[in-house]
Amino acid sequence: MIYLDHASTTPLLPEVISVVNDVLTESWGNPSSSHANGRKAKAVVETARKTFATDFGVTPGEIFFTSGATESIFLGLQSAILDGCDFIITAATEHKAVLDSVDFLAQKHQIKKLVLAVNNKGQISMTELENAIKAHPGKTLVALMYVNNETGLIHPVKSIGQIVGKYDGLFFCDAVQAALFQDITPRDLGIHYLSLSAHKFNGPKGVGLLFVARETGKHSLWKGGSQERKMRPGTENVYGIAGMAKAWRSNFDSRMEKRNLMADLKSIAIKALNSIPGLEINAEDGAPHILHFSFPSAKKAEQLLMALDIEGVMLSAGSACQSGSHQVSHVIEAMNKPGNQIHLRMSFGFGNTKDQVLSACQTLVRLVS
Amino acid sequence: MIYLDHASTTPLLPEVISVVNDVLTESWGNPSSSHANGRKAKAVVETARKTFATDFGVTPGEIFFTSGATESIFLGLQSAILDGCDFIITAATEHKAVLDSVDFLAQKHQIKKLVLAVNNKGQISMTELENAIKAHPGKTLVALMYVNNETGLIHPVKSIGQIVGKYDGLFFCDAVQAALFQDITPRDLGIHYLSLSAHKFNGPKGVGLLFVARETGKHSLWKGGSQERKMRPGTENVYGIAGMAKAWRSNFDSRMEKRNLMADLKSIAIKALNSIPGLEINAEDGAPHILHFSFPSAKKAEQLLMALDIEGVMLSAGSACQSGSHQVSHVIEAMNKPGNQIHLRMSFGFGNTKDQVLSACQTLVRLVS
Repeated sequence: MIYLDHASTTPLLPEVISVVNDVLTESWGNPSSSHANGRKAKAVVETARKTFATDFGVTPGEIFFTSGATESIFLGLQSAILDGCDFIITAATEHKAVLDSVDFLAQKHQIKKLVLAVNNKGQISMTELENAIKAHPGKTLVALMYVNNETGLIHPVKSIGQIVGKYDGLFFCDAVQAALFQDITPRDLGIHYLSLSAHKFNGPKGVGLLFVARETGKHSLWKGGSQERKMRPGTENVYGIAGMAKAWRSNFDSRMEKRNLMADLKSIAIKALNSIPGLEINAEDGAPHILHFSFPSAKKAEQLLMALDIEGVMLSAGSACQSGSHQVSHVIEAMNKPGNQIHLRMSFGFGNTKDQVLSACQTLVRLVS
Repeated sequence: MIYLDHASTTPLLPEVISVVNDVLTESWGNPSSSHANGRKAKAVVETARKTFATDFGVTPGEIFFTSGATESIFLGLQSAILDGCDFIITAATEHKAVLDSVDFLAQKHQIKKLVLAVNNKGQISMTELENAIKAHPGKTLVALMYVNNETGLIHPVKSIGQIVGKYDGLFFCDAVQAALFQDITPRDLGIHYLSLSAHKFNGPKGVGLLFVARETGKHSLWKGGSQERKMRPGTENVYGIAGMAKAWRSNFDSRMEKRNLMADLKSIAIKALNSIPGLEINAEDGAPHILHFSFPSAKKAEQLLMALDIEGVMLSAGSACQSGSHQVSHVIEAMNKPGNQIHLRMSFGFGNTKDQVLSACQTLVRLVS
C-alpha cells in the first residue's frame, strides 16, 4: 500500500502515539480538578500551550485548543465579525471550511463579502485585495489561507498581513497545510487569527488550535464552562493536546531535513509523470509536500483513483471532504482550467520513500495510457 | 493514591486504551477519503455509531459524535430553540453547562425561561413542571438532567418525558452521569436530545455524543463540512469515537456487577463516615457511584480537600468545573442546606476497592475530628 494523500490526513509519528499513551495511562485527570490528579493533567495542557507559544513567538494566552481546524475557522471568523468587522474578503480557492463559514456568517450578520477571483495559477491579485480594503469605510476581515490544500500554492501571507495592517483590518489565516514546512509566526506575518489541525501534521484527530492575537476579539461558539478562558468551554482533550504538541515539536525539529525529502519526492514524481501527454504541473513552486497536476483524459478522475486504489496506491482528486462528489472542485473551477483535463493531487509525508513515489507514478502512467 | 472523584473524570479501561491504540496505528485515515485508508476509518466511526444506536434502541442516524458533553448540550439546546421552542424550563441544580447555555440562549433568542426550584433533597416538583408547560401556549423545551453530578440524585426521567410529550414539548436530557448505571433508552423515556461524555465512563477525553430524535430539529453550531450529516462539520475524532464506543460496551456488558460493587462501596463509605458528628447523606438512594454528604465543620471544604490531597486521597466539593472557586456550589445553594455545613462528594469507579474506600473514609474522619 502506498499512501500519497498526506494533505487529507497523516499517519501519527511513533513518538506521538507514545506520548498519547503516556497521557492516557498517567495523566487522565480532569484539568479543572484541584487535586494532584487534576493538576497533573492541567500541567500537560499548559506545557503544550507553551510549546506552541514559544515556537510561534506569541504568548501562551493567545493559544486556544479546539477540536480541529473546522471549529477553529468558524470560531475565529465569527470572533472577528463580533469584534466589529463588517466586510469579509476571501478567495475562491479557500477550503470549503472557510468558504461555507464566510457565506453563513455574512448572511447571518448581514455584512458584505467579496470572494476574490484567482488567475490560472490560483493566485489572487494583491492590487484587487488592497483596493477592496481601501474602498471599505469600516473594518475589514481578510480570510486567506497560507497554503492551498489542493494545489499547494503558497499565498504571500506576509504581504497580505501588511496590507491588512495598513488599513486596520483583521487577518484570519487558515494555516492547516502550512504547519509542516512554513513559518508560523503570526505576529511577524500580521496575522490575527490562525487555525491548525493536528492530524495534518502527524498528530491525532479531534484536536486543533486557534491563535488569537492578544488585542483581538474572542467570542466562544458555546457556553458552559471556563476552560480555555471561556473561549472553548468543555473538559480539555488532554491526550489530543499533548499528542498535537509532540507532533508539532517532532516536525519542527527536523523541518529542513523533511522539507528536503519532500522536495526530492516531488521532483521524482514530476519526472516520472512527465510521459503523460499534456501534463501540467500546477503551483510547482508551492508547498514541497503537495504535487497537483492536470492532464487531458478520457477517463474520469474518480475512475483512475479507483483503479489506483485497487493497485494499492492512494491519492486524491482534491480535498478529502469533497471526495466521492464526482464534481470538479471549486478550486479547479476558480483556476479556469480546460474542461477536458482531469486533476490529481499527490501529497507526500512521513513514511514515504523515493521507491514508493516512483512505483506509484509508474502505476499511474500505466493506467493513464 | 486513592482516587474517589470519578464524577469529575474516570481512568480509561485497559481495553479502551488498547482500542485507541489500534485505531491510532491502523485506522488513521480520513473517513471522508474514498480510498481504502479512508474507508477503513469510516468503518470505525460507523461501527461505533451502530453500537450506541443498538444499545439505545434508536437508529444510527440519530447519533451524532461531538467533542464532549459541553458541546453536545449547547448543540442540542440551540437546535431545540431553532426548531421552534420559545420557552425553556430547567432546574436550579443542573450542571453549569446547561444553566449557562440556557441563560445565554434565552437572552439571545429573547425567549422566556423558568428555573425550577428544588426541595432540600434536590427534587423538583412535577406538578410545578407540568403546570408551567401547560400554561405556555407555545412549544416548551425542558432541560433536565438524568443524574445530578454533585449529589447523584436521579430525576424521574420517564415521568418528565411523559409530561413533556403530553404537551408536545421537547425534552433535552443531560445524561452524562447516567451513562454507567442508568437505562439510556431515549425513545422509551420520551427524550428528544441526550448528551454523553466519554471521559465520564472510562473513555477518552475530547469526545462525546448527542442523540437527536429523528423527527426533531438539527442545527449545527458551525459550518464547513458535511461530516456528521452537516450537524457537526470537521474530520471525525476516529480514535476518540472508537474508544468511547469500547468504553460504553465494556461497561454495558458488566453493568449489574459494577453497579453492585459501587453500591457496596457507597454502603461501606456511609458506615465509615457515620462517626462524623451531624453527618447527613444527601440523595442516598441516587446513583450508586456518587456519595454526597454534608456535616457542620469549622474547617472550610477546600482546606479539608487539600489536607486529603496531601495524604493521597482525592475527592471534591462538587463539580470539577468549579473547583478552586471556594464558593458553595449552586446545587447546594438551591437545596437550601444549613450555612454551617460543608459538603463533599465521593465518587467511585473502576479501580476502586473496599479497602481504598475504607482507608479514605478513615483519613477523612481523622482530619475532621
